[in-house]
Amino acid sequence: MKIGIYGYGNLGRGVERAFAKNPDMELVGVFTRRDPETVKTRTGAPVFAADRAAEFMGEIDVMILCGGSATDLPEMTPALARSFNVVDSFDTHARIPDHFSRVDRAAFQTAHTALISGGWDPGLFSLARLYMSAAIPDGRDYTFWGRGVSQGHSDAIRRIEGVRDARQYTIPIQEAVTRVKNGEQPELTARQKHLRECFVVAEEDADCDRIEKEIREMPNYFADYDTVVHFISEEELKRDHSGLPHGGEVIRSGHTSAENGHVMTFSLKLDSNPEFTGSVLLACARAVGRMHSRGIYGCHTLFDVPPADLSALSPEELRAKML
Amino acid sequence: MKIGIYGYGNLGRGVERAFAKNPDMELVGVFTRRDPETVKTRTGAPVFAADRAAEFMGEIDVMILCGGSATDLPEMTPALARSFNVVDSFDTHARIPDHFSRVDRAAFQTAHTALISGGWDPGLFSLARLYMSAAIPDGRDYTFWGRGVSQGHSDAIRRIEGVRDARQYTIPIQEAVTRVKNGEQPELTARQKHLRECFVVAEEDADCDRIEKEIREMPNYFADYDTVVHFISEEELKRDHSGLPHGGEVIRSGHTSAENGHVMTFSLKLDSNPEFTGSVLLACARAVGRMHSRGIYGCHTLFDVPPADLSALSPEELRAKML
Repeated sequence: MKIGIYGYGNLGRGVERAFAKNPDMELVGVFTRRDPETVKTRTGAPVFAADRAAEFMGEIDVMILCGGSATDLPEMTPALARSFNVVDSFDTHARIPDHFSRVDRAAFQTAHTALISGGWDPGLFSLARLYMSAAIPDGRDYTFWGRGVSQGHSDAIRRIEGVRDARQYTIPIQEAVTRVKNGEQPELTARQKHLRECFVVAEEDADCDRIEKEIREMPNYFADYDTVVHFISEEELKRDHSGLPHGGEVIRSGHTSAENGHVMTFSLKLDSNPEFTGSVLLACARAVGRMHSRGIYGCHTLFDVPPADLSALSPEELRAKML
Repeated sequence: MKIGIYGYGNLGRGVERAFAKNPDMELVGVFTRRDPETVKTRTGAPVFAADRAAEFMGEIDVMILCGGSATDLPEMTPALARSFNVVDSFDTHARIPDHFSRVDRAAFQTAHTALISGGWDPGLFSLARLYMSAAIPDGRDYTFWGRGVSQGHSDAIRRIEGVRDARQYTIPIQEAVTRVKNGEQPELTARQKHLRECFVVAEEDADCDRIEKEIREMPNYFADYDTVVHFISEEELKRDHSGLPHGGEVIRSGHTSAENGHVMTFSLKLDSNPEFTGSVLLACARAVGRMHSRGIYGCHTLFDVPPADLSALSPEELRAKML
C-alpha cells in the first residue's frame, strides 16, 4: 500500500519510522509546507512541497495527515479528503462531531475513505472505553495519563515572558489509580487525578517567582492542579528531558450483578509518544486502504473499523495465531 | 433485540443475568436438553425443551449457545446456525479453523450470521493481542491467566479415584509478569508462567498421597507445572471456594525503533467468570443481530466486528462520549 505523510514534525517523523516495521507499507514521500530543500528526512524519503500533493492523486493510496488539531487539521483533513483517502489524529474532543461531519461530507462526495482521531487517545484508549463499557454496561471508567510529556502544557509555559524553554510532565496520582483498580468508583477532581511537574529554563535576568506564579495560576492548564515547578539549566533540560515519553491507563470497574464486580484495565508505557502514535496511524492507514477497496466511503473512526483490517496478517492467520 | 439462551449451566445463567444491565435486549427463553419442568430460571424466564427450538425461528433474533467446547459446540453451532443467528464461546484453540469453516458454511447457506469464540479468552484477550500487534508489529506478547478457577483442571481432578470434589486455581507467577512488564522478552516455560493450586475433598478412606501424586503427574494438565495440593473438608470447599473468579492479562512489549520501546497491558480481574463471559456474549449477540440486518452473513469472530456494533449507544453518542 502506498502512503504519503503530510506534515513533517515529531508525528510525521514517528510515522516515517514505522515503515521499517511494516514491510507491506511503502512510503511515497513527505509533503511539507516548508521549503522542501530545507527538509532532510531520516530515511531519505523524498520531500515535496505541500501544494504539489494534488499531483500525486492516484499514486498514493492513503495520506497520513500529521498537522496539529488546533488550526491545521480542521482545514487540512476535509480539504485533502477531496483528493485522497486520509488518516488524521484530531484530538480536540469537543470539536470531533463537527470535524467528523465536515470530513464525512468531503470524503463521501468524492468517494474517498477517511479515518479521524487515530492514535492512542483518542484511539486505542477510546477503543478500550468502548469495549469495556459494552462488556460491563453498569460501571464507570477513568482515564489516567502519564507519566508523560504534554506538548500543549509545555508550549503554554514557553509562552510566559522570561521562559526560554520548558517541559511539563503529567503524572497520575497513584492513590487515585489504586482506589479505582480496587473497584471503588470515586468522584475525583482534576487535582485528585493528576499532578503537573514542570521543568523550566528561565532567561538569565527573569523573575522566577513571577514565572512560577504565572504557571500555577494559568487557567485550564494549571490552576486546577497541584503543580510543581523546577528551574533548571538549558543543559539539564537537554540532558534529562529531551525524550517524549508518555502513556497512561483506562480503568473500568462495574458489576454484572449485586454480588459480582469486575475491573478491566488497559495501559500503555511509551518511550516515545510520536513514534507509537505514528505506528498506530500507519495501521489505521492500512485499514482505510482496505475499506476503500471494499467501497466503504466517508468518514470513520476506529469504532467503525473491523479490527482485522488493522493487521498485516490475513484473517486465517489471525484466527490461528491470536484468537 | 430478541435473544434465546441454548444451554443452562453456569454460562447460560451468566448470560441470563446480563439482561438486567442491557435494557435493549430481551430474553425470549432458555432452551435445555434436560426436562424443562425440572429447570427453574433465576429470572423466571420461560424454559423450553431444546428440541423445540426450531419452533422459535423468526421469533428469536440471536441464539446464544452455552454448551461446552469439547463435545457440545462442534455439533451444536453448525446445526443451530441453519435456523438462527448464533453466538458461541468455542475455546478449543487448535480446532477453531475447522469449527469456523463448518459454521461458516451452515450460516452462509441459510443467510444467517454467526460469531464464534466470543467471551474474554478467546474474545477480549484475542482483540488485545490483535490491536497490540498492529500497533507494535515488532514485539512479543504474553498471556497470563488468573488467579482464577479453571473448570477443566477442576474436572480433571474430580475424575481421579477417591476424589469427591475439587477446585483448581491457575496463578500467574509474579516474577514472570514483572519481567514482561519491564519490557524484557524472556523465553518462559509453562512452569515459569503459571502455578497450579488445588483444593481437594477426598473420600473418607482415600489414599491422599496417591491422589496428590496422580494430580502432580497428570500429563497436559499438571505435569508441566509446579502444583500445590491441599486436602480440605467439604465444608471448607463450600465456604471458601464456591465462587468462580478469574482474570489475567495480555502484555505486549516491542520497539518502534532501536531507541524506543513500549509496553501495552490489558488486564481483567473478575469476581465471576461466567457472569462476565455471559455479559460479553450478550454484547456479541447485539453485534450479530446488527450485522445480520445489514446483510452480512456467514461466520465471524470479534476480529471482524466493528467495535461500535457491540455497544447499545449510537455512533454519535459513542463519538461524543468515548472517543
